[in-house]
Amino acid sequence: MAEVENKQVIFKGYVERTPEETDMEIKVGKIKLEAPKGSGAFLVKNLYLSCDPYMRGRMRDVHDSYIPSFVPGQPFEGFGVSKVIDSDHPNFKPGDLVSGITGWEEYSLIHRTEQLRKIQPDDDIPLSYHVGLLGMPGFTSYAGFFEVCNPKKGEYVFVSAASGAVGQLVGQLAKLHGCYVVGSAGTSQKIDLLKNKLGFDEAFNYKEEPDFDAALKRYFPQGIDIYFDNVGGEMLDAALDNMRVHGRVAVCGVLSQQDFSKPRGIYKWLNLITKSIKMQGFLQHDYLHLYPSFMEHVIGNYKQGKIVVIEDMNEGLESSPAAFVGLFHGKNVGKQVIRVAHE
Amino acid sequence: MAEVENKQVIFKGYVERTPEETDMEIKVGKIKLEAPKGSGAFLVKNLYLSCDPYMRGRMRDVHDSYIPSFVPGQPFEGFGVSKVIDSDHPNFKPGDLVSGITGWEEYSLIHRTEQLRKIQPDDDIPLSYHVGLLGMPGFTSYAGFFEVCNPKKGEYVFVSAASGAVGQLVGQLAKLHGCYVVGSAGTSQKIDLLKNKLGFDEAFNYKEEPDFDAALKRYFPQGIDIYFDNVGGEMLDAALDNMRVHGRVAVCGVLSQQDFSKPRGIYKWLNLITKSIKMQGFLQHDYLHLYPSFMEHVIGNYKQGKIVVIEDMNEGLESSPAAFVGLFHGKNVGKQVIRVAHE
Repeated sequence: MAEVENKQVIFKGYVERTPEETDMEIKVGKIKLEAPKGSGAFLVKNLYLSCDPYMRGRMRDVHDSYIPSFVPGQPFEGFGVSKVIDSDHPNFKPGDLVSGITGWEEYSLIHRTEQLRKIQPDDDIPLSYHVGLLGMPGFTSYAGFFEVCNPKKGEYVFVSAASGAVGQLVGQLAKLHGCYVVGSAGTSQKIDLLKNKLGFDEAFNYKEEPDFDAALKRYFPQGIDIYFDNVGGEMLDAALDNMRVHGRVAVCGVLSQQDFSKPRGIYKWLNLITKSIKMQGFLQHDYLHLYPSFMEHVIGNYKQGKIVVIEDMNEGLESSPAAFVGLFHGKNVGKQVIRVAHE
Repeated sequence: MAEVENKQVIFKGYVERTPEETDMEIKVGKIKLEAPKGSGAFLVKNLYLSCDPYMRGRMRDVHDSYIPSFVPGQPFEGFGVSKVIDSDHPNFKPGDLVSGITGWEEYSLIHRTEQLRKIQPDDDIPLSYHVGLLGMPGFTSYAGFFEVCNPKKGEYVFVSAASGAVGQLVGQLAKLHGCYVVGSAGTSQKIDLLKNKLGFDEAFNYKEEPDFDAALKRYFPQGIDIYFDNVGGEMLDAALDNMRVHGRVAVCGVLSQQDFSKPRGIYKWLNLITKSIKMQGFLQHDYLHLYPSFMEHVIGNYKQGKIVVIEDMNEGLESSPAAFVGLFHGKNVGKQVIRVAHE
C-alpha cells in the first residue's frame, strides 16, 4: 500500500515554564494507511483532538508521575475521537469510531488499543463530546466531585477555572446535587456564561479581585465546604483560609502556575489541621469502575437539558499549538477541541 | 465547707509565636472542695496533666478552629487524670478516677462532664497512660494511622517527631501492621530509642541532615507510601517530593513552626496532583466510634510487650510551664506528663 502524507505536531523538548507555541512544530511525515498483520494494532484517522492542561505535565523532564512524559522528536499525544480505517484487532473494524489516547497527527497507528473505547453513535450527542463531557475531563469532574469531595446537599462549593472543561461540569453536577455553587474565571464573558448559561449561583472575575481572600469572604460568608481547585497557587491559599471544618479540596489543576520548577508556596496549610481539611490529588483513572454510572448520569441529564456544554472548537491541526498554549492564558471559552478532519 | 488553696497555671494572653514560659503564670486561688447541689458537676483533684503540642493552637486569637481558644486570665486546660472528690453527677462518685479535659490546677470543678470518662483501674497500666498511650495522643495515632493513612502491609512509612507521644505509637502500630518504618527526631538519644527500644527499622536525627530531601531519598530509595507528619514545614515539603503515587500524608502537627502568623510555605504541592496524593488533617474526635477497638488493640499489644511506652514525667504543677514550652524545643523524651499529685 502506498504511503500518504501525515501532518504531525512534534514535541520539541522538555520545559518547566508555561508551554509556548515554539515548543511544538508541525511536520509532515508519511504513513501507510494499514495495520500490519500480526500487530494487533489499528490505523485511525483522527477527527477531534483534545487540548487539556494536564498535558503540560507530560512536557516536563520528570519521570515519577502517573503518566510518562512526551518523547522529544515524537508527536504530542492526547485524547481524541478517531475513525478506524484499517484494523488487525479482532474487536475493531474499519468505520468504527473510537475515543481515547491518540497522536496529534492526521493518522495514527494505535498499538496501545486498550487505551481506546468504541463510541456508540448517538444522534443527540456531538462526537467531540467524547473528549469533553463524556471523556476524561467530564469523568474527572464526576469522579473528583463525587468521590474526592464527597458532597452533601446544601453544601457550599467553590470552583476555579469554572468555565473550563472540568469546572463547567463540576459546577453543574454540584447544582444538580443541591449545592450552592460559586465559580471564578478570568473574563466577563466567562462570568456571564457561568451565571446565565451554566447555572452557577454566583461567579466572579478573579482578575478584578485584588484580594482573593476578601472575594471569597464576600461570596462565602459562611465558609466553603468544597473547593474544586483547577488553578492552585494564590487562589488555593485563599480558599484554605476560607474552608469550613471538615472541608474538602480536590486539587485537580494548576493553571495559575507559570513555572513548575518554581511554584508559588502554599502558606495556609495550617488550616488542614485546625479545620480537619482533606486536600487530595486524584486520577480519574483510579475510578474507572464508576464509568458506567457516570455515563448514565451525565447523558441522562444532558438529554433532559439539565447539563449544558460549552465548547471552544478550533479548525485544523495547524491551529492546535496556539489552542493548546491558549489554555494557559485563559483564551479558551469552554472545552478546547481541535477539529482535525470532518466526519 | 471551707475553701482550700488551689494553685493554678493562668493563661496570660494570645500569641502566634512559639509559647514561652512567661505566657503562663502560677497563681494561688481558693476553691471549695464540693460540687454545688443542682449543678450536675463534680469536683476533682488533678493527678496528672498532659502537655500536648495542639494546646498551642488554643493560645491563638483565632476563633474558627475545632476547639475554642483559651481565655486570658483563666487557667490552661487540657487532658488529665483526676480523682473525683465530690460529685453532684449521678454517674460519678467520690473516689472515681476519670480522664479527660480538666484545668491546669490542683482542683477543678468540672461542669462539662461529658468530656471525661471513667477509668477502669488496671494494675498493669500506669494511671498516667490515660493521657498518653490510652488517651488523646494514642487515639490520634490509631485513628490517624488506620483511618487517614489506610495502611497496607509492606508499605513504607515515615514518621516525624517520632519519639513523641503520637509518633512513638504510630511507628509501633505501623510495625505491628507489617510496614517498613523510619522515624526522625532531634537528638541522638531519641534516635537510639527509636531504633533500639521502639522497634523502628531506621531513624535519623534531622538536625544532622543539611538536606532533608537527600536524607529521605537515602532512607526511602523506593519512596514513601505514608507520611505521618508531626512537624510540617521543611520536612513536609521534602516528604511530598518523596511520596509515591497514591501516597497519604496525615498532617497531625506543626512542631517545626515558630510563628503561626508566618508559616513556612509549602512548595512541593504539585506532587499532590502528579502523584495523586491525599494530604489530610483530622480530629481524633471524629473517630470516637473506633475507641473500643483502639483500646482493645493497644491494651492487648501493650500487655504482650509488643507496644512500649516512653514517658517524660515532670513533678509538680510549678514545672508545667517549662515542660509545656519544652515540647516546642524537643526537650521532652517521649510523652510529656506532669504529676500534680500522687495517687
